[in-house]
Amino acid sequence: MNKQTKRMMKKKIAIVGSVDQGKPSIKAMVVTRREDGGVFYFDSNHSAQTVASWKECPSACVYFCDRLIYRGVKLSGTMEIIDDMALKEQHWKPSKKAIYKGGAADPDYCILKFTATGGRYYFMYQVEDFEI
Amino acid sequence: MNKQTKRMMKKKIAIVGSVDQGKPSIKAMVVTRREDGGVFYFDSNHSAQTVASWKECPSACVYFCDRLIYRGVKLSGTMEIIDDMALKEQHWKPSKKAIYKGGAADPDYCILKFTATGGRYYFMYQVEDFEI
Repeated sequence: MNKQTKRMMKKKIAIVGSVDQGKPSIKAMVVTRREDGGVFYFDSNHSAQTVASWKECPSACVYFCDRLIYRGVKLSGTMEIIDDMALKEQHWKPSKKAIYKGGAADPDYCILKFTATGGRYYFMYQVEDFEI
Repeated sequence: MNKQTKRMMKKKIAIVGSVDQGKPSIKAMVVTRREDGGVFYFDSNHSAQTVASWKECPSACVYFCDRLIYRGVKLSGTMEIIDDMALKEQHWKPSKKAIYKGGAADPDYCILKFTATGGRYYFMYQVEDFEI
């Protein structure tokens, strides 16, 4: 993994990909927390279409764009839907109340945990695969 | 389709989604031309992994990010791989020579044509589906 990849993987906004009934779907999401080993957490809702897609097909990818057009990092892996109350409380911030009216216990609130199994770095017209 | 959607659909860079052997994949691409009716053209290579994916599964999505985190436009549709020499010559620019050494007739050069069948506008935590 090169320096640029490491830098881009720290970005706050990720473009997240899922497969919805055999079709690709994309959504920008805020990374709420990250761990070594290619683990990224996102907040979401059980009622969201993408969450339903990941319940069916847990394959996911996470893409980080750069200011430079031709530079990007794609991580491939799986998305897990977590309903653990301890983790929800650990991730909770008062500002989230605007979205999850019921607080950390809001029944629609869920945490998404993405675990990368591999990555690809795009630069100009070159690609470079890397391990996590 | 609202004003913001129309504005974002004019962006030069699109994040394009495909399904590769049942798994989602994402890549940033430059829109080379667009037509009314949700048609977007991209330059690509027959040897590219995404092109191979679309040959297998033509479903695609195109996502436009905004500077504002919580605003995005997703178009769903299909991707066609075009090898028509007349279209290649019509799209050709001398600056492309750096990528396609063989010019418009470079055997690896292909044109991708995305045709949207529907769209979704994301703003804050709201979504709004629209027709093309």
